[in-house]
Amino acid sequence: MRFELTKEYLEKIEVAIERQDNEWLINTLKELHDADIASIIDELEFEDGAYLFELLDDETQGDVLVEIDDDVRDHIISTYSSKEIAEQIENLDSDDAADIIADLPKNQIAEVISHIQDNEAAEDIVDLLNYAEDSAGGLMQKEFIRAKLDWPVNRCIIELRRQAEDVEKVYTIYVVDDEDRLVGLLSLKSLLFASQKTKISDLYVNKNMISVKTSDDNEDVARIMEKYDLVSVPVINLQNKLVGRITIDDVVDVIKEEADKDFQLASGISEKIEANATVWKISRARLPWLLIGMLGGILGAQVISGFEGGISEVPALAFFIPLITAMGGNVGVQSSAIVVQSLAKGNDMFGSIFKKLAKEALVGLVNGLFLAIVIYGIAYVFGNPALGLVVSLSLLTVIFFAAIFGTLIPLLLDKWKIDPALATGPFVTTLNDVLGLFIYFTIGILILGI
Amino acid sequence: MRFELTKEYLEKIEVAIERQDNEWLINTLKELHDADIASIIDELEFEDGAYLFELLDDETQGDVLVEIDDDVRDHIISTYSSKEIAEQIENLDSDDAADIIADLPKNQIAEVISHIQDNEAAEDIVDLLNYAEDSAGGLMQKEFIRAKLDWPVNRCIIELRRQAEDVEKVYTIYVVDDEDRLVGLLSLKSLLFASQKTKISDLYVNKNMISVKTSDDNEDVARIMEKYDLVSVPVINLQNKLVGRITIDDVVDVIKEEADKDFQLASGISEKIEANATVWKISRARLPWLLIGMLGGILGAQVISGFEGGISEVPALAFFIPLITAMGGNVGVQSSAIVVQSLAKGNDMFGSIFKKLAKEALVGLVNGLFLAIVIYGIAYVFGNPALGLVVSLSLLTVIFFAAIFGTLIPLLLDKWKIDPALATGPFVTTLNDVLGLFIYFTIGILILGI
Repeated sequence: MRFELTKEYLEKIEVAIERQDNEWLINTLKELHDADIASIIDELEFEDGAYLFELLDDETQGDVLVEIDDDVRDHIISTYSSKEIAEQIENLDSDDAADIIADLPKNQIAEVISHIQDNEAAEDIVDLLNYAEDSAGGLMQKEFIRAKLDWPVNRCIIELRRQAEDVEKVYTIYVVDDEDRLVGLLSLKSLLFASQKTKISDLYVNKNMISVKTSDDNEDVARIMEKYDLVSVPVINLQNKLVGRITIDDVVDVIKEEADKDFQLASGISEKIEANATVWKISRARLPWLLIGMLGGILGAQVISGFEGGISEVPALAFFIPLITAMGGNVGVQSSAIVVQSLAKGNDMFGSIFKKLAKEALVGLVNGLFLAIVIYGIAYVFGNPALGLVVSLSLLTVIFFAAIFGTLIPLLLDKWKIDPALATGPFVTTLNDVLGLFIYFTIGILILGI
Repeated sequence: MRFELTKEYLEKIEVAIERQDNEWLINTLKELHDADIASIIDELEFEDGAYLFELLDDETQGDVLVEIDDDVRDHIISTYSSKEIAEQIENLDSDDAADIIADLPKNQIAEVISHIQDNEAAEDIVDLLNYAEDSAGGLMQKEFIRAKLDWPVNRCIIELRRQAEDVEKVYTIYVVDDEDRLVGLLSLKSLLFASQKTKISDLYVNKNMISVKTSDDNEDVARIMEKYDLVSVPVINLQNKLVGRITIDDVVDVIKEEADKDFQLASGISEKIEANATVWKISRARLPWLLIGMLGGILGAQVISGFEGGISEVPALAFFIPLITAMGGNVGVQSSAIVVQSLAKGNDMFGSIFKKLAKEALVGLVNGLFLAIVIYGIAYVFGNPALGLVVSLSLLTVIFFAAIFGTLIPLLLDKWKIDPALATGPFVTTLNDVLGLFIYFTIGILILGI
């Protein structure tokens, strides 16, 4: 029964759009989940997607807008008036509505908000727009259910029924005092099975209650929800007043985006890029790293040119340039990857820098020694022990330093509040290349006596 | 109010353990969340952690066991008898209990199960042990709440109260027919606000109901829950019978682990390694990649040695070896990173291989042309246009091929059912190094007429 978007299915949709067979399209879409409609629109050409979107009713349009890719959304929204946009997003959760509005051109934002019929909803959106996008405030929604400490269960159920109209998914009821300060949690389960006269104050729990502040960072919220296995977390302001809640589905998106960003940074891609971005946009996102890499290559050429005499005399020295640079790069990336992941998990506080460095240096020594022995053995067998000694000693030294730099650089970047994932990219590799070449040729000249 | 594990706090705990101040420790631990106790034990020395664990009551011991690192858990569990382990895990959710039991030595598994008092719980665990660890069956728990279609609300509440004793968190009630086949969902919210006489068949929803099969892959489950914003998903067997449910907290762990694994693979680390693993273990996890890298370096040396005459005549040719290899490596990693992420999201079906290749080749041409012009300009200014032409033409060619291989290799790996994240590591880099050197020296010899 699960929907799967096949190539054939997509072609059927395309044919129906071409034929303007609206009846078939509307009936087909009616059976689908919003997320599936969104994935169809994402895959269609812009114009076809906009045609399909037009066929949906206001409420579904809003739900689909939340799910489609940013660039497709921008394109579709630009074809609608402010009033139409207001109608589409009116039924959305406040956080989703605020996200869509925040992406609009500046001069259109106030206009769309003025067209939202429901005053309370408009106020919630205006309030949410104040928070930074990557903070708990920017992630939260204003729809949640609250109960007062002194309510009995039967009154609570009546009050909640009214509140629940606006709240699509209820996980936990937040218990507040007369000043709207969060004092505890109440599960729907305990409410469902309690007798009518019980007071909320006898049902709620406040041991180990976890909440976040509006100013908390997105990623901290994700870490907390992950650590404590929460499906929703209440958000409080500076006065400890309950102002919103964050649900796990939004946090899963944060976790995925963060992992994707780290992976891209580590791979030398500097902007968030959708798979269907233009060739020009993709090229631009990659160019900065390539320029850094090229700069490193030019520096490397400088280093080698300083040893031109040595190469003239023993051209075989040049053979192992790629070996030295590649190994330095590989070891550097390995070391920094571990530090980057450890930092991303937020558990860097105990291992002091020196302890970490000592460990990585030791790992570098172990692997460096092993590889140095192997390469010396190979050189010995092929009858060039002197050059073998140069390569194996250099390899050991380069791996040792690469391990240290690979550990140190992400730690320093993190201290300077720069995303440490940068370090696993061309940055460490380039540094290790230049340093490695210098070590290699210096050792070569010393041992070969050139 | 939120717990933060500082160095000072940890030292206080360590001092209290040394003094055997059990009263203070027990009172301190009582105030903490299980996840926080687990993070303390993770950070302590093995023996201190085991001491602290010993002070907890059976139920907390079980909850903490679920949260601590694998190696710490193995160590702690090895000090307990099968009967004690059974007592500790008795109160856990079936999936958590099964996970712990599955990690025990083979001969101990049956023994621990025989000591579990609650027969039904033991049966659930035995059943769960049958499923592959990375399948929906291996992820699911047997605790869930089910209602029959023909129950009225009041009977439903009575039945559910009995069922709910075993179920810690209730998100959704699953509605089944007389054959236990899943037919729909019922929210606690709708049950709470419904009148007593309403039939479940009038309350439940079955439009767009999402379920997974026991045999579905972990990562597919994660994708589905993410796509449809689910906090729990029912699991059905081959006969469409409801056999369990998967909750979002377990899926968040799958998503995180998958992202970590991809990042590590892409960084050349082959085993899952905890931050506190031994130097020996860390070294071993990295060595395979370094050996591949070294093999690549040796192949590179072979290629260059084939052009020894050229280097003797024009030693400056050697200067740009690192530039060529580094740029090929960088471009290859950039191209493969995009493919790997795209595959990880499960959306590879539309862009046929050729379309993807054409796009990446175009990006390679754009960036390659830009960089080739820059490097030619630099060489021209410094008065060596012939060598500049060699480097810039080689760079363009190498970048072009690196973009194509970087795209092709992960797609091929995925087709051969090998994790494509492997491709962003030393694999692509090494191939590009060897190929790049060959291109560079060939062009060099042709243009310089050596």
